Amino acid sequence: MDVTTYCHDLADRALTASRKLVSASGAQRNAALAAVARRLVESGAKIKDANARDLQAGKEAGLSAAMLDRLKLDDAGIKKMAESVKQIAAQTDPVGQIIEGSVRPNGLRLEKVRVPIGVVLIIFESRPNVTCDAAALCIKSGNATILRGGKEAMHSNAAIAACVREGLAEGGLDVDAVQLVETTDRAAVGELLKMEGKIDLAIPRGGESLIRAVVEQARIPVIKHYTGNCHVYVHGDADEQMALDICINAKTQRTGVCNACETILIHDDAAKRGLLTRIADALIERRVEVRGDTAVCAAVPQAVAALESDWGTEFLDLIVAMGVVDSLDAAVAHINKYGSRHTDAIVTQSIAAADQFVQQVDAANVFVNCSTRFSDGGEYGLGAEIGISTDKLHARGPMGAADLTTYKWVARGNGQVRE
Amino acid sequence: MDVTTYCHDLADRALTASRKLVSASGAQRNAALAAVARRLVESGAKIKDANARDLQAGKEAGLSAAMLDRLKLDDAGIKKMAESVKQIAAQTDPVGQIIEGSVRPNGLRLEKVRVPIGVVLIIFESRPNVTCDAAALCIKSGNATILRGGKEAMHSNAAIAACVREGLAEGGLDVDAVQLVETTDRAAVGELLKMEGKIDLAIPRGGESLIRAVVEQARIPVIKHYTGNCHVYVHGDADEQMALDICINAKTQRTGVCNACETILIHDDAAKRGLLTRIADALIERRVEVRGDTAVCAAVPQAVAALESDWGTEFLDLIVAMGVVDSLDAAVAHINKYGSRHTDAIVTQSIAAADQFVQQVDAANVFVNCSTRFSDGGEYGLGAEIGISTDKLHARGPMGAADLTTYKWVARGNGQVRE
Repeated sequence: MDVTTYCHDLADRALTASRKLVSASGAQRNAALAAVARRLVESGAKIKDANARDLQAGKEAGLSAAMLDRLKLDDAGIKKMAESVKQIAAQTDPVGQIIEGSVRPNGLRLEKVRVPIGVVLIIFESRPNVTCDAAALCIKSGNATILRGGKEAMHSNAAIAACVREGLAEGGLDVDAVQLVETTDRAAVGELLKMEGKIDLAIPRGGESLIRAVVEQARIPVIKHYTGNCHVYVHGDADEQMALDICINAKTQRTGVCNACETILIHDDAAKRGLLTRIADALIERRVEVRGDTAVCAAVPQAVAALESDWGTEFLDLIVAMGVVDSLDAAVAHINKYGSRHTDAIVTQSIAAADQFVQQVDAANVFVNCSTRFSDGGEYGLGAEIGISTDKLHARGPMGAADLTTYKWVARGNGQVRE
Repeated sequence: MDVTTYCHDLADRALTASRKLVSASGAQRNAALAAVARRLVESGAKIKDANARDLQAGKEAGLSAAMLDRLKLDDAGIKKMAESVKQIAAQTDPVGQIIEGSVRPNGLRLEKVRVPIGVVLIIFESRPNVTCDAAALCIKSGNATILRGGKEAMHSNAAIAACVREGLAEGGLDVDAVQLVETTDRAAVGELLKMEGKIDLAIPRGGESLIRAVVEQARIPVIKHYTGNCHVYVHGDADEQMALDICINAKTQRTGVCNACETILIHDDAAKRGLLTRIADALIERRVEVRGDTAVCAAVPQAVAALESDWGTEFLDLIVAMGVVDSLDAAVAHINKYGSRHTDAIVTQSIAAADQFVQQVDAANVFVNCSTRFSDGGEYGLGAEIGISTDKLHARGPMGAADLTTYKWVARGNGQVRE
């Protein structure tokens, strides 16, 4: 079968499965998820065998230790996947929720009702647990999904997808509600991204180059999860200890994640109070490399001069760009110019400053007096997330199961016609 | 100035204006709208002069009478535009609405707040009043907009846009919140559709070929308003008079609109009760051409045989495709195969049949016992609409001012850091 035929076949199966899924009750979808969780644990040995093949191939291909680490699945990892599926099953069912409703003057009863989107294509890179999380979120929200994982995790992904499909069958749902793209032919992604009318949405998860390639090729809607170039802005009146705690936490508590802080901006008044050196010293003490503007370099001997490109970089490492600004306006302008619209925080005691920052910073998550690390589906109480959208359309910020739904307008009448 | 530079300049101005607009209160935006409405009426003579030039050019270019009619603006038309702006001003302000909120266990106060999308590109065809409606909806929702109208209405659009910008200035808002693309160079649209990071959304309004061309070129999100191939399905148990009234209204009350009915499906049981011939005769009496399947042609002498392509056609005319189905399942399958996911209605007395239809038909608007003609922002109480989205992402069905917003997550703390 050629790749075009293969992809159309995948999409047709997914569409058929999605049409059946809309009639499955929440209880049925949850029962299937419970079965998936059970199968994952029962099939632990098979999954580990498959994973061992991927790890072996990865070593032979010269993957870095970090990549091999992301790829590795042990008993604890498998148990964690199963737990995640159970947690997703336990979430509130978004399908069927009535978002709004009214009775029109002519007696029509109008409801805006949450329904599954239909068929969702998810394209991701190395971590095999994404196969499981993405499939579970789609099942929960009543969507059929086509999963395209990284080549380096192909055996692991296939073993996990097999468990998911066994669980679907056990739960009485169409196994084609979850399909894994089994060819490594790169043309397959291009084909799938053009299937308007069959596939409703593409979600690429991974590096910026993957996402850009998807956007270039897509004729179907794409929700993008670009980088997190997150800022902490320390206002002139900031509480010293609070500013220090938040900067340290946002930068160092976990560096390799999208909601970690990459740039710290400090108001001149705070710098004059000694906050600049206190924060810089605390970070340097924690092995953070400080890349500063002129003012920072003048005050902090260990700082190196920041390049223009540093202000726009997601370091994902023990590196921070630091600058001094002479006003809140300047801080907002800097963030709107260099930021990635992900998560930005202000530390201040002033209501007016907080309100201005919240209103004017154009980002998915805008925080006052807390660490940027809180932009997260779990922290927001949304449960497991499919990612953190840096788009503005449809879903922005942490995307949970409800964000994998759309709505339909349902009107019920008793013979109304339009005059 | 070359077209690339011109487009970047437009987009930069729009972005700057949109950044200012987020700080404008609802009262300011409404005052600007009131000024726009006043200017439109005061500038009636100028608008009519400009319109006369377009009409003259249109006649010379050999535009059809129907196209010239769509293009024409008289005093009544100008007054109607001004009234529409006032009505948009009177709508509830979507900006700042708190969609949901909670206090997290760690004390963070979390809110999901409606905010403007930013910069919206609207591409439309001949009717000049779209310039005014689209601008007003964008001002209401706090967005900057770039408008690209049809070449044939260029003078009318420019005169209307001038009134809008005068109104913005009078209301103290940045005039660049509304800009009209003033070059007729087709390359301009292609340039604008690639401006990720500056333009947040494109909304093409017009024929299918325009929308397809936009989707092909776009690297920014597009909300599509495709055709309305709307269905009425008459179930076996339908009330005869109700079925008749709804079919006549949906097909004939206004034929040139997207929510008019194009296909009528009749259950075999209803056909046997004589409903098929009653409905067909009533439509034929109203000069509707019936294109039927074998069963319809056998029962209705005046019917012509429907071609396969008729089932997928939006006639926008006194033509209807009619078919007989032997089950509700067959009706749903037909609609999901040939429909355009716009508006589909069932006529039935059965709760079970209605529920199945509502659940299984994949469309923006699914109706029970009423005419398809009700899928409309005004009828839904949403006020003026930017269009009726046939997409599933972000907005589906009638799109009002609230659908021109996104949201941001705002968290307010008192020093919370992540463990």
